[in-house]
Amino acid sequence: MGIARAWWVWLLVVAVGALGSSRLCSSSSPTINNSSCLSWRLAVEANNARAWRTVPPDCHDYVGSYMTGGQYQRDLDMVVQQITAYITTDLQLSNNNYSAWILDVDDTCLSNVLYYRRKRFGCDPYDPTGFRSWAAKGASPAVPAIHTLFRKLVTTGFKVFLITGRDGDSLAHSTTQNLHTQGYTGYQRLFMRNSSYKGQSAVAFKSEIRKQLVDQGYKILGNVGDQWSDLAGDCAGERTFKIPNPMYFVP
Amino acid sequence: MGIARAWWVWLLVVAVGALGSSRLCSSSSPTINNSSCLSWRLAVEANNARAWRTVPPDCHDYVGSYMTGGQYQRDLDMVVQQITAYITTDLQLSNNNYSAWILDVDDTCLSNVLYYRRKRFGCDPYDPTGFRSWAAKGASPAVPAIHTLFRKLVTTGFKVFLITGRDGDSLAHSTTQNLHTQGYTGYQRLFMRNSSYKGQSAVAFKSEIRKQLVDQGYKILGNVGDQWSDLAGDCAGERTFKIPNPMYFVP
Repeated sequence: MGIARAWWVWLLVVAVGALGSSRLCSSSSPTINNSSCLSWRLAVEANNARAWRTVPPDCHDYVGSYMTGGQYQRDLDMVVQQITAYITTDLQLSNNNYSAWILDVDDTCLSNVLYYRRKRFGCDPYDPTGFRSWAAKGASPAVPAIHTLFRKLVTTGFKVFLITGRDGDSLAHSTTQNLHTQGYTGYQRLFMRNSSYKGQSAVAFKSEIRKQLVDQGYKILGNVGDQWSDLAGDCAGERTFKIPNPMYFVP
Repeated sequence: MGIARAWWVWLLVVAVGALGSSRLCSSSSPTINNSSCLSWRLAVEANNARAWRTVPPDCHDYVGSYMTGGQYQRDLDMVVQQITAYITTDLQLSNNNYSAWILDVDDTCLSNVLYYRRKRFGCDPYDPTGFRSWAAKGASPAVPAIHTLFRKLVTTGFKVFLITGRDGDSLAHSTTQNLHTQGYTGYQRLFMRNSSYKGQSAVAFKSEIRKQLVDQGYKILGNVGDQWSDLAGDCAGERTFKIPNPMYFVP
Protein backbone atom coordinates (compact mmCIF):
# COMPACT_ATOMS: atom_id res chain seq x y z
CA MET A 1 0.00 0.00 0.00
CA GLY A 2 1.24 3.42 -1.03
CA ILE A 3 1.04 5.15 2.35
CA ALA A 4 2.91 2.46 4.28
CA ARG A 5 5.50 2.36 1.53
CA ALA A 6 5.90 6.11 1.69
CA TRP A 7 6.95 5.89 5.30
CA TRP A 8 9.46 3.13 4.60
CA VAL A 9 11.03 5.09 1.75
CA TRP A 10 11.12 8.16 3.97
CA LEU A 11 12.98 6.19 6.60
CA LEU A 12 15.44 5.25 3.86
CA VAL A 13 15.87 8.93 2.95
CA VAL A 14 16.67 9.78 6.54
CA ALA A 15 18.96 6.79 7.06
CA VAL A 16 20.94 7.33 3.85
CA GLY A 17 21.10 11.04 4.53
CA ALA A 18 22.31 10.51 8.08
CA LEU A 19 25.00 8.17 6.80
CA GLY A 20 26.11 10.85 4.36
CA SER A 21 26.04 13.53 7.02
CA SER A 22 28.02 11.47 9.52
CA ARG A 23 30.69 11.05 6.87
CA LEU A 24 30.68 14.75 6.13
CA CYS A 25 30.79 16.10 9.64
CA SER A 26 32.98 15.31 12.58
CA SER A 27 29.97 15.99 14.81
CA SER A 28 26.39 16.66 13.74
CA SER A 29 25.73 18.94 16.72
CA PRO A 30 28.14 21.79 15.91
CA THR A 31 27.04 21.55 12.27
CA ILE A 32 23.33 21.91 12.82
CA ASN A 33 23.96 24.72 15.27
CA ASN A 34 26.18 26.67 12.91
CA SER A 35 24.89 30.14 13.68
CA SER A 36 25.67 31.85 10.36
CA CYS A 37 24.09 29.02 8.33
CA LEU A 38 21.06 29.20 10.60
CA SER A 39 20.83 32.93 9.78
CA TRP A 40 21.12 32.16 6.08
CA ARG A 41 18.40 29.49 6.29
CA LEU A 42 16.11 31.93 8.11
CA ALA A 43 16.73 34.55 5.39
CA VAL A 44 15.70 31.97 2.77
CA GLU A 45 12.54 30.92 4.60
CA ALA A 46 11.48 34.51 5.33
CA ASN A 47 11.89 35.42 1.63
CA ASN A 48 14.72 37.85 2.35
CA ALA A 49 17.36 35.93 0.37
CA ARG A 50 16.28 35.63 -3.27
CA ALA A 51 17.71 34.48 -6.60
CA TRP A 52 20.47 32.48 -4.93
CA ARG A 53 21.97 29.81 -7.18
CA THR A 54 23.66 27.46 -4.74
CA VAL A 55 23.84 26.81 -1.01
CA PRO A 56 26.86 28.70 0.44
CA PRO A 57 29.79 26.22 0.42
CA ASP A 58 30.35 26.65 4.17
CA CYS A 59 26.77 25.50 4.79
CA HIS A 60 27.06 22.14 3.01
CA ASP A 61 27.33 20.07 6.17
CA TYR A 62 24.75 22.24 7.92
CA VAL A 63 22.08 21.79 5.23
CA GLY A 64 22.80 18.05 5.01
CA SER A 65 22.37 17.67 8.75
CA TYR A 66 19.27 19.86 8.71
CA MET A 67 17.56 17.89 5.94
CA THR A 68 18.32 14.44 7.33
CA GLY A 69 18.92 14.91 11.05
CA GLY A 70 15.37 15.60 12.22
CA GLN A 71 14.98 19.38 12.27
CA TYR A 72 13.53 19.54 8.74
CA GLN A 73 10.83 17.05 9.73
CA ARG A 74 10.12 18.97 12.92
CA ASP A 75 9.80 22.20 10.95
CA LEU A 76 7.45 20.48 8.49
CA ASP A 77 5.36 19.09 11.33
CA MET A 78 5.06 22.59 12.80
CA VAL A 79 3.75 24.02 9.50
CA VAL A 80 1.25 21.18 9.14
CA GLN A 81 0.14 21.88 12.72
CA GLN A 82 -0.53 25.51 11.73
CA ILE A 83 -2.43 24.40 8.62
CA THR A 84 -4.52 21.93 10.61
CA ALA A 85 -5.44 24.65 13.12
CA TYR A 86 -6.49 26.90 10.22
CA ILE A 87 -8.62 24.18 8.62
CA THR A 88 -10.30 23.01 11.79
CA THR A 89 -10.91 26.29 13.59
CA ASP A 90 -10.87 29.20 11.11
CA LEU A 91 -12.57 27.75 8.06
CA GLN A 92 -16.22 27.19 7.34
CA LEU A 93 -16.59 25.00 4.26
CA SER A 94 -19.92 26.43 3.20
CA ASN A 95 -19.68 25.17 -0.34
CA ASN A 96 -17.44 22.13 -0.46
CA ASN A 97 -17.76 21.71 -4.20
CA TYR A 98 -15.84 24.90 -4.76
CA SER A 99 -13.47 24.94 -1.78
CA ALA A 100 -10.09 24.50 -3.38
CA TRP A 101 -6.64 23.82 -1.98
CA ILE A 102 -3.39 24.08 -3.94
CA LEU A 103 -0.33 21.93 -3.37
CA ASP A 104 3.00 22.10 -5.15
CA VAL A 105 4.63 18.77 -6.09
CA ASP A 106 8.45 18.79 -5.82
CA ASP A 107 9.62 18.89 -2.22
CA THR A 108 6.04 19.49 -1.15
CA CYS A 109 4.10 16.31 -2.02
CA LEU A 110 7.17 14.38 -3.17
CA SER A 111 10.65 14.48 -1.69
CA ASN A 112 13.77 14.93 -3.80
CA VAL A 113 16.18 14.78 -0.88
CA LEU A 114 17.71 11.53 -2.19
CA TYR A 115 18.48 13.28 -5.47
CA TYR A 116 19.77 16.48 -3.89
CA ARG A 117 22.02 14.53 -1.58
CA ARG A 118 23.97 13.58 -4.71
CA LYS A 119 24.04 17.27 -5.61
CA ARG A 120 25.65 18.06 -2.25
CA PHE A 121 22.33 19.26 -0.82
CA GLY A 122 22.24 22.20 -3.22
CA CYS A 123 25.91 23.21 -3.12
CA ASP A 124 26.12 22.05 -6.76
CA PRO A 125 24.31 24.25 -9.27
CA TYR A 126 20.95 23.25 -10.76
CA ASP A 127 21.31 20.41 -13.28
CA PRO A 128 18.19 20.29 -15.50
CA THR A 129 19.23 17.06 -17.29
CA GLY A 130 20.05 15.28 -14.04
CA PHE A 131 16.81 16.35 -12.42
CA ARG A 132 14.75 15.32 -15.44
CA SER A 133 16.32 11.83 -15.33
CA TRP A 134 15.53 11.58 -11.62
CA ALA A 135 11.93 12.74 -12.10
CA ALA A 136 11.46 10.32 -15.05
CA LYS A 137 12.15 7.40 -12.71
CA GLY A 138 9.07 8.24 -10.67
CA ALA A 139 10.89 7.15 -7.54
CA SER A 140 10.44 10.18 -5.27
CA PRO A 141 9.06 9.22 -1.87
CA ALA A 142 6.16 11.13 -0.38
CA VAL A 143 6.90 13.79 2.22
CA PRO A 144 5.04 12.06 5.09
CA ALA A 145 3.74 15.19 6.85
CA ILE A 146 2.34 16.56 3.59
CA HIS A 147 0.85 13.21 2.64
CA THR A 148 -0.98 13.14 5.97
CA LEU A 149 -2.21 16.69 5.29
CA PHE A 150 -3.28 15.72 1.78
CA ARG A 151 -5.44 12.87 3.09
CA LYS A 152 -7.01 15.21 5.63
CA LEU A 153 -7.78 17.79 2.94
CA VAL A 154 -9.41 15.19 0.67
CA THR A 155 -11.48 13.61 3.44
CA THR A 156 -12.55 17.05 4.70
CA GLY A 157 -14.00 17.78 1.28
CA PHE A 158 -11.48 20.13 -0.30
CA LYS A 159 -10.92 19.96 -4.02
CA VAL A 160 -7.16 19.51 -4.08
CA PHE A 161 -5.26 20.73 -7.13
CA LEU A 162 -1.60 19.94 -7.68
CA ILE A 163 0.40 22.49 -9.68
CA THR A 164 3.94 21.72 -10.75
CA GLY A 165 6.53 23.38 -12.97
CA ARG A 166 7.53 19.92 -14.26
CA ASP A 167 7.28 19.55 -18.04
CA GLY A 168 3.96 17.93 -18.93
CA ASP A 169 5.10 16.69 -22.33
CA SER A 170 7.87 14.46 -21.00
CA LEU A 171 7.08 13.84 -17.32
CA ALA A 172 3.29 13.44 -17.14
CA HIS A 173 3.31 9.63 -16.94
CA SER A 174 6.13 9.24 -14.42
CA THR A 175 4.75 12.03 -12.21
CA THR A 176 1.20 10.68 -12.19
CA GLN A 177 2.49 7.18 -11.42
CA ASN A 178 4.83 8.46 -8.75
CA LEU A 179 2.04 10.33 -7.00
CA HIS A 180 -0.23 7.29 -7.20
CA THR A 181 2.28 4.82 -5.76
CA GLN A 182 2.98 7.25 -2.94
CA GLY A 183 -0.67 7.39 -1.93
CA TYR A 184 -1.72 10.63 -3.55
CA THR A 185 -5.13 9.55 -4.78
CA GLY A 186 -8.35 11.55 -4.80
CA TYR A 187 -7.00 14.88 -5.95
CA GLN A 188 -9.02 16.86 -8.46
CA ARG A 189 -6.39 17.51 -11.10
CA LEU A 190 -2.65 17.71 -11.68
CA PHE A 191 -1.54 20.77 -13.66
CA MET A 192 1.85 20.53 -15.35
CA ARG A 193 3.74 23.05 -17.42
CA ASN A 194 2.96 22.40 -21.08
CA SER A 195 4.41 24.06 -24.15
CA SER A 196 2.15 27.11 -23.88
CA TYR A 197 3.72 28.04 -20.52
CA LYS A 198 7.35 27.40 -21.47
CA GLY A 199 9.67 30.27 -20.65
CA GLN A 200 7.24 31.72 -18.11
CA SER A 201 8.39 32.15 -14.53
CA ALA A 202 6.86 29.89 -11.88
CA VAL A 203 4.96 32.89 -10.49
CA ALA A 204 3.40 33.69 -13.89
CA PHE A 205 2.57 30.07 -14.76
CA LYS A 206 1.09 29.19 -11.38
CA SER A 207 -0.84 32.48 -11.17
CA GLU A 208 -2.40 31.73 -14.56
CA ILE A 209 -3.55 28.27 -13.47
CA ARG A 210 -4.97 29.58 -10.20
CA LYS A 211 -6.78 32.35 -12.07
CA GLN A 212 -8.42 29.75 -14.32
CA LEU A 213 -9.66 27.92 -11.20
CA VAL A 214 -11.06 31.11 -9.70
CA ASP A 215 -12.75 31.94 -13.01
CA GLN A 216 -14.39 28.51 -12.82
CA GLY A 217 -15.87 29.46 -9.46
CA TYR A 218 -13.38 27.88 -7.07
CA LYS A 219 -12.40 29.66 -3.89
CA ILE A 220 -8.75 28.95 -3.08
CA LEU A 221 -8.66 28.62 0.68
CA GLY A 222 -5.11 27.40 1.05
CA ASN A 223 -1.88 27.07 -0.89
CA VAL A 224 1.21 25.14 0.23
CA GLY A 225 4.64 25.13 -1.39
CA ASP A 226 8.34 24.94 -0.64
CA GLN A 227 9.10 28.01 -2.81
CA TRP A 228 7.90 31.57 -2.38
CA SER A 229 7.21 31.52 -6.13
CA ASP A 230 4.48 28.93 -5.41
CA LEU A 231 2.78 31.45 -3.13
CA ALA A 232 3.23 34.80 -4.89
CA GLY A 233 1.25 36.39 -7.72
CA ASP A 234 -2.45 36.41 -8.48
CA CYS A 235 -5.12 34.39 -6.68
CA ALA A 236 -2.49 33.08 -4.26
CA GLY A 237 -5.11 31.84 -1.78
CA GLU A 238 -6.77 32.98 1.46
CA ARG A 239 -3.79 31.62 3.38
CA THR A 240 -0.41 30.53 2.04
CA PHE A 241 2.03 28.26 3.84
CA LYS A 242 5.75 28.11 3.11
CA ILE A 243 7.31 24.76 3.91
CA PRO A 244 11.07 24.65 4.31
CA ASN A 245 13.58 24.11 1.53
CA PRO A 246 17.13 25.39 1.95
CA MET A 247 18.46 23.31 -1.01
CA TYR A 248 17.42 25.37 -4.02
CA PHE A 249 15.58 28.48 -5.16
CA VAL A 250 13.00 28.61 -7.98
CA PRO A 251 12.43 32.17 -9.28
CA MET B 1 26.57 61.81 19.77
CA GLY B 2 23.46 59.77 19.03
CA ILE B 3 25.07 56.98 17.05
CA ALA B 4 27.81 56.22 19.56
CA ARG B 5 25.20 56.32 22.31
CA ALA B 6 23.05 53.86 20.38
CA TRP B 7 25.82 51.30 20.48
CA TRP B 8 26.40 51.78 24.20
CA VAL B 9 22.73 51.38 24.95
CA TRP B 10 22.60 48.32 22.72
CA LEU B 11 25.49 46.82 24.68
CA LEU B 12 23.42 47.46 27.81
CA VAL B 13 20.45 45.65 26.24
CA VAL B 14 22.60 42.63 25.48
CA ALA B 15 24.32 42.65 28.86
CA VAL B 16 21.11 43.01 30.88
CA GLY B 17 19.41 40.44 28.69
CA ALA B 18 22.24 37.98 29.07
CA LEU B 19 22.13 38.46 32.84
CA GLY B 20 18.42 37.69 32.76
CA SER B 21 18.91 34.69 30.54
CA SER B 22 21.65 33.23 32.68
CA ARG B 23 19.30 33.42 35.64
CA LEU B 24 16.53 31.78 33.64
CA CYS B 25 18.45 28.92 32.11
CA SER B 26 20.81 26.41 33.60
CA SER B 27 22.72 26.54 30.33
CA SER B 28 22.17 28.86 27.37
CA SER B 29 23.29 26.27 24.84
CA PRO B 30 20.52 23.67 25.23
CA THR B 31 18.00 26.53 25.41
CA ILE B 32 18.95 28.23 22.17
CA ASN B 33 19.06 24.85 20.43
CA ASN B 34 15.62 23.80 21.59
CA SER B 35 14.41 22.18 18.40
CA SER B 36 10.66 22.66 18.82
CA CYS B 37 11.05 26.35 19.73
CA LEU B 38 13.32 26.74 16.70
CA SER B 39 10.51 25.25 14.56
CA TRP B 40 8.02 27.66 16.13
CA ARG B 41 10.31 30.63 15.50
CA LEU B 42 10.73 29.58 11.86
CA ALA B 43 6.94 29.32 11.50
CA VAL B 44 6.62 32.89 12.81
CA GLU B 45 9.29 34.30 10.52
CA ALA B 46 7.93 32.49 7.43
CA ASN B 47 4.44 33.88 8.13
CA ASN B 48 2.99 30.41 8.77
CA ALA B 49 2.07 31.07 12.41
CA ARG B 50 -0.38 33.97 12.63
CA ALA B 51 -2.57 35.69 15.18
CA TRP B 52 -0.63 34.20 18.12
CA ARG B 53 -1.10 36.09 21.36
CA THR B 54 1.86 35.00 23.45
CA VAL B 55 5.12 33.11 23.08
CA PRO B 56 4.56 29.43 23.98
CA PRO B 57 5.46 29.09 27.70
CA ASP B 58 8.00 26.37 26.95
CA CYS B 59 9.87 28.77 24.69
CA HIS B 60 10.41 31.50 27.29
CA ASP B 61 14.07 30.67 27.92
CA TYR B 62 14.63 30.00 24.24
CA VAL B 63 13.32 33.38 23.08
CA GLY B 64 15.23 35.18 25.85
CA SER B 65 18.45 33.49 24.83
CA TYR B 66 17.72 34.14 21.16
CA MET B 67 17.07 37.86 21.63
CA THR B 68 20.07 38.52 23.89
CA GLY B 69 22.57 35.75 23.18
CA GLY B 70 23.77 36.82 19.73
CA GLN B 71 21.63 34.89 17.23
CA TYR B 72 19.09 37.71 16.86
CA GLN B 73 21.88 40.13 15.94
CA ARG B 74 23.37 37.63 13.52
CA ASP B 75 19.97 37.15 11.86
CA LEU B 76 19.54 40.92 11.63
CA ASP B 77 23.00 41.31 10.11
CA MET B 78 22.11 38.68 7.50
CA VAL B 79 18.96 40.55 6.45
CA VAL B 80 20.85 43.85 6.24
CA GLN B 81 23.45 42.05 4.11
CA GLN B 82 20.64 40.97 1.71
CA ILE B 83 19.26 44.52 1.63
CA THR B 84 22.69 46.01 0.95
CA ALA B 85 23.21 43.57 -1.95
CA TYR B 86 19.83 44.61 -3.36
CA ILE B 87 20.62 48.33 -3.07
CA THR B 88 24.13 48.15 -4.47
CA THR B 89 23.68 45.63 -7.29
CA ASP B 90 20.03 45.42 -8.34
CA LEU B 91 18.84 49.00 -8.07
CA GLN B 92 19.35 51.90 -10.44
CA LEU B 93 18.31 55.12 -8.73
CA SER B 94 17.30 56.92 -11.92
CA ASN B 95 15.23 59.51 -10.11
CA ASN B 96 16.50 59.98 -6.59
CA ASN B 97 13.89 62.54 -5.67
CA TYR B 98 11.16 59.93 -5.86
CA SER B 99 12.99 56.78 -4.78
CA ALA B 100 11.36 55.92 -1.48
CA TRP B 101 12.15 53.44 1.25
CA ILE B 102 9.84 52.51 4.12
CA LEU B 103 10.96 51.57 7.62
CA ASP B 104 8.81 50.51 10.54
CA VAL B 105 9.74 51.97 13.95
CA ASP B 106 9.17 49.53 16.85
CA ASP B 107 11.70 46.70 16.83
CA THR B 108 12.87 47.86 13.44
CA CYS B 109 14.45 51.31 13.98
CA LEU B 110 14.11 51.25 17.76
CA SER B 111 14.51 48.25 20.05
CA ASN B 112 11.99 47.36 22.74
CA VAL B 113 13.89 44.34 24.00
CA LEU B 114 14.49 46.02 27.38
CA TYR B 115 10.74 46.46 27.75
CA TYR B 116 9.80 42.98 26.55
CA ARG B 117 12.35 41.43 28.86
CA ARG B 118 10.08 42.61 31.70
CA LYS B 119 7.16 41.00 29.83
CA ARG B 120 8.99 37.66 29.83
CA PHE B 121 10.06 38.14 26.19
CA GLY B 122 6.47 37.93 25.01
CA CYS B 123 5.22 35.12 27.26
CA ASP B 124 3.04 37.75 28.96
CA PRO B 125 0.11 39.04 26.89
CA TYR B 126 0.20 42.46 25.22
CA ASP B 127 -0.15 45.29 27.74
CA PRO B 128 -1.20 48.48 25.91
CA THR B 129 -0.87 50.69 29.01
CA GLY B 130 2.55 49.33 29.90
CA PHE B 131 3.81 49.74 26.36
CA ARG B 132 2.48 53.28 26.08
CA SER B 133 4.33 54.23 29.29
CA TRP B 134 7.53 52.72 27.93
CA ALA B 135 7.18 54.49 24.57
CA ALA B 136 6.40 57.81 26.31
CA LYS B 137 9.82 57.70 27.98
CA GLY B 138 11.53 57.88 24.58
CA ALA B 139 14.26 55.60 25.87
CA SER B 140 14.31 52.86 23.24
CA PRO B 141 17.82 52.27 21.91
CA ALA B 142 18.42 52.04 18.17
CA VAL B 143 18.73 48.61 16.58
CA PRO B 144 22.35 49.04 15.44
CA ALA B 145 22.12 47.03 12.19
CA ILE B 146 19.04 48.98 11.10
CA HIS B 147 20.58 52.29 12.10
CA THR B 148 23.59 51.50 9.90
CA LEU B 149 21.18 50.61 7.06
CA PHE B 150 19.23 53.83 7.64
CA ARG B 151 22.37 55.94 7.27
CA LYS B 152 23.29 54.12 4.09
CA LEU B 153 19.81 54.68 2.65
CA VAL B 154 19.90 58.41 3.44
CA THR B 155 23.40 58.94 2.05
CA THR B 156 22.56 56.89 -1.07
CA GLY B 157 19.74 59.33 -1.80
CA PHE B 158 16.62 57.42 -0.79
CA LYS B 159 13.71 59.34 0.64
CA VAL B 160 13.18 57.40 3.84
CA PHE B 161 9.70 57.34 5.37
CA LEU B 162 9.02 55.92 8.81
CA ILE B 163 5.55 54.47 9.37
CA THR B 164 4.47 53.40 12.85
CA GLY B 165 1.26 52.21 14.44
CA ARG B 166 2.10 54.31 17.53
CA ASP B 167 -0.56 56.82 18.44
CA GLY B 168 0.33 60.22 17.01
CA ASP B 169 -1.79 62.22 19.44
CA SER B 170 0.02 61.04 22.57
CA LEU B 171 3.41 59.75 21.41
CA ALA B 172 4.54 62.13 18.66
CA HIS B 173 6.95 64.13 20.81
CA SER B 174 8.58 61.21 22.62
CA THR B 175 8.92 59.19 19.41
CA THR B 176 10.45 62.05 17.42
CA GLN B 177 12.87 62.81 20.25
CA ASN B 178 13.74 59.15 20.71
CA LEU B 179 14.54 58.76 17.01
CA HIS B 180 16.65 61.93 17.06
CA THR B 181 18.72 61.00 20.09
CA GLN B 182 19.36 57.58 18.54
CA GLY B 183 20.78 59.10 15.38
CA TYR B 184 17.79 58.83 13.07
CA THR B 185 18.15 62.18 11.33
CA GLY B 186 17.58 62.99 7.68
CA TYR B 187 14.43 60.97 7.09
CA GLN B 188 11.70 62.50 4.98
CA ARG B 189 8.74 62.11 7.29
CA LEU B 190 7.42 60.10 10.24
CA PHE B 191 3.85 58.87 9.82
CA MET B 192 2.00 57.97 13.01
CA ARG B 193 -1.48 56.63 13.51
CA ASN B 194 -3.80 59.56 14.18
CA SER B 195 -7.47 59.52 15.08
CA SER B 196 -8.64 59.00 11.50
CA TYR B 197 -6.86 55.62 11.38
CA LYS B 198 -7.94 54.38 14.81
CA GLY B 199 -9.42 50.90 14.77
CA GLN B 200 -7.84 50.07 11.42
CA SER B 201 -5.54 47.09 11.20
CA ALA B 202 -1.83 47.75 10.67
CA VAL B 203 -2.14 46.39 7.12
CA ALA B 204 -4.97 48.82 6.26
CA PHE B 205 -3.34 51.85 7.92
CA LYS B 206 0.12 51.26 6.46
CA SER B 207 -1.30 50.46 3.00
CA GLU B 208 -3.18 53.74 3.02
CA ILE B 209 -0.06 55.74 3.87
CA ARG B 210 2.00 53.97 1.22
CA LYS B 211 -0.74 54.56 -1.34
CA GLN B 212 -0.63 58.29 -0.57
CA LEU B 213 3.12 58.27 -1.23
CA VAL B 214 2.69 56.43 -4.53
CA ASP B 215 -0.05 58.89 -5.53
CA GLN B 216 2.46 61.69 -4.87
CA GLY B 217 4.80 60.08 -7.39
CA TYR B 218 7.12 58.13 -5.12
CA LYS B 219 8.35 54.70 -6.16
CA ILE B 220 8.69 52.48 -3.09
CA LEU B 221 11.80 50.43 -3.75
CA GLY B 222 12.10 48.79 -0.36
CA ASN B 223 10.16 48.19 2.84
CA VAL B 224 11.55 46.78 6.09
CA GLY B 225 9.61 45.68 9.15
CA ASP B 226 9.59 43.15 11.96
CA GLN B 227 5.92 42.23 11.32
CA TRP B 228 4.38 40.70 8.21
CA SER B 229 1.62 43.30 8.61
CA ASP B 230 4.25 45.96 7.80
CA LEU B 231 4.88 44.26 4.47
CA ALA B 232 1.43 43.12 3.32
CA GLY B 233 -1.34 45.02 1.54
CA ASP B 234 -1.21 47.66 -1.18
CA CYS B 235 1.91 49.33 -2.53
CA ALA B 236 4.08 47.12 -0.30
CA GLY B 237 7.26 47.95 -2.24
CA GLU B 238 9.43 46.43 -4.96
CA ARG B 239 11.16 44.31 -2.31
CA THR B 240 10.09 43.68 1.25
CA PHE B 241 12.35 42.47 4.04
CA LYS B 242 11.14 40.77 7.21
CA ILE B 243 13.45 41.26 10.16
CA PRO B 244 13.08 38.84 13.06
CA ASN B 245 10.75 39.26 16.00
CA PRO B 246 9.61 36.19 17.94
CA MET B 247 8.24 38.27 20.88
CA TYR B 248 4.89 39.49 19.61
CA PHE B 249 2.51 39.48 16.66
CA VAL B 250 0.76 42.56 15.25
CA PRO B 251 -2.25 41.65 13.06
